[in-house]
Amino acid sequence: MRQTPFLPKRPLKVAVLGSSGAVGSELLKILEERDFPISELRLLSSERSEGKKVKWKGEELLTKNTTDKEFFNIDLVLASAGGSISRKWLSTIKDQNAVLIDNSSAFRLDNDVPLVVPEVNSGDALKHNGVIANPNCTTILLTLVLSPLNNISTIKRVIISTYQSVSGAGQLAMEELKLLTERYLKGDPQNSQVLPYSLAFNLFLHNSPMLSNNYCEEEMKMVNETRKILNMPDLKVSSTCVRVPVLRAHSESINIEFEGIVQPKDALEKLSQSAGIEIIEDYENNRFPMPNDVMGRDNVAVGRLRADISHPNGLELWLCGDQIRKGAALNAVQIAELLIPDK
Amino acid sequence: MRQTPFLPKRPLKVAVLGSSGAVGSELLKILEERDFPISELRLLSSERSEGKKVKWKGEELLTKNTTDKEFFNIDLVLASAGGSISRKWLSTIKDQNAVLIDNSSAFRLDNDVPLVVPEVNSGDALKHNGVIANPNCTTILLTLVLSPLNNISTIKRVIISTYQSVSGAGQLAMEELKLLTERYLKGDPQNSQVLPYSLAFNLFLHNSPMLSNNYCEEEMKMVNETRKILNMPDLKVSSTCVRVPVLRAHSESINIEFEGIVQPKDALEKLSQSAGIEIIEDYENNRFPMPNDVMGRDNVAVGRLRADISHPNGLELWLCGDQIRKGAALNAVQIAELLIPDK
Repeated sequence: MRQTPFLPKRPLKVAVLGSSGAVGSELLKILEERDFPISELRLLSSERSEGKKVKWKGEELLTKNTTDKEFFNIDLVLASAGGSISRKWLSTIKDQNAVLIDNSSAFRLDNDVPLVVPEVNSGDALKHNGVIANPNCTTILLTLVLSPLNNISTIKRVIISTYQSVSGAGQLAMEELKLLTERYLKGDPQNSQVLPYSLAFNLFLHNSPMLSNNYCEEEMKMVNETRKILNMPDLKVSSTCVRVPVLRAHSESINIEFEGIVQPKDALEKLSQSAGIEIIEDYENNRFPMPNDVMGRDNVAVGRLRADISHPNGLELWLCGDQIRKGAALNAVQIAELLIPDK
Repeated sequence: MRQTPFLPKRPLKVAVLGSSGAVGSELLKILEERDFPISELRLLSSERSEGKKVKWKGEELLTKNTTDKEFFNIDLVLASAGGSISRKWLSTIKDQNAVLIDNSSAFRLDNDVPLVVPEVNSGDALKHNGVIANPNCTTILLTLVLSPLNNISTIKRVIISTYQSVSGAGQLAMEELKLLTERYLKGDPQNSQVLPYSLAFNLFLHNSPMLSNNYCEEEMKMVNETRKILNMPDLKVSSTCVRVPVLRAHSESINIEFEGIVQPKDALEKLSQSAGIEIIEDYENNRFPMPNDVMGRDNVAVGRLRADISHPNGLELWLCGDQIRKGAALNAVQIAELLIPDK
């Protein structure tokens, strides 16, 4: 059992598990950009990706096959290699008294695992037992906006339709979108290998496994994780998740019903004062957030707030956020920063 | 004043106004495919597009500049050249005792102009006074689905997020999307000329003019036209319209609240028996409608019906429809067919 939720007060031994993927690469970039206190960085991958050279802070590092000994004396593990890999190494990581910040959905709904968006529920991070879960990308963007608005008036119901970039399906899916689009433009046949169907000038409902209520896993992640992060277990949420031919930023069309009336101008003011959010809203020039605005950026762009004409207590709004950054890697590093003593 | 709502009982003199655009070209194709009874077809265009050669039923026709004399003795005008052109020629057309079926939004909400989706409110077509309006593309697709469901239980509220193809912005916008995508893939700069921003691997909220309630024109078309077509002037509708990098099929994520509980299986059965609708719904194989399924097709594809977990009387569903066909040209020709006596 850990004595303290905090990491040791010294430069840390950090392992990135899944370091060669889209999120893994971004994790390395963000650790460097934010000057995270690291004494030793270990890049772990599958056997297949072993030996890849990676530049980090001017040094050349090599990715290594993940084995027990790579976790020896480790302080912090940032994992984005999928749920089964995280499960596999959990006890090894715990044996080292290290903290695992996990980007998979493996532990997100476990009672003793905090699910954290630092701008929303940073306090939860300190209640961990060796594992903190990084929420699903769409959920991170959504809760960033819902949390401040919930302080104006309690949220009763949220209906979301997503416009999710292909980066959520990984690096290979991004490459496939570009390849199949090129083929489409040349009139060549479209054989998708990574995604179930070609996304070239096409879109489809999220292809995660269907659950018994006929929502897919991705949609129920939004429902359940939003409830946990906001600590609103009975919040009514419905979501339709759609994969669109965009490379790395998600968008969401969000309809919110509050207990009381919320004026769009009050909501706008509240959001403009909230961390992690940038307002892009210019009704005169018809200028609102687009995926292109947020690619490679930390902040989630929000705009198009308007009173819902179909409900007196309703508000419609729109957001875009970089799926790899705030939707995954940045949020994980921000969680780790919460565990640095006296920071 | 017309003696009868019907067209004369003989092969007709038909003019297509705006014959060189995306919808105009499709109109010609559909008139040929459906063997619409035509004795003479006049292709009218702007002066700029005059003299374009068009193959129709094996003959070569020439587009002509639109002048008064081109309407002489005409029986039927199918217009898709924009509202100002339709307004300009309205009295000329009426003077010929002809019928105008207009694809623009110019007359759609006029009291003496029926707004018709043949599968939904064919009876309204016969109440015309020389002009029948063809609804907005997204509205046609939406009402096709709402109308049968409203017969199971009265609809109280509808919340829609659209995924609209670029064809709705015309032929040039379609070409621009392909061009800018090619440039993106080559790493060349993106200068959009037709649309306000590049749609290459990007998307943006619909750029139609903003109204005083901060909904855009396109969104309020969905609200007002749906109410008129369904003859439900107080129906609560809210819509968020989004342009996505898809070429010619629109998708819609639709959340419906009914007076009572509607079982998804009953809704599915009702829709599967409804004209103009095709069900694509295979939960086991995660297969639902995609734009690629409906390109060039007449039917609107519907699927992913499920009980809304956020509301006891709610239903979530998803549709895709060809914007140029059922969303515009096909619907206009179907309206014209309603006016053919003894058909």
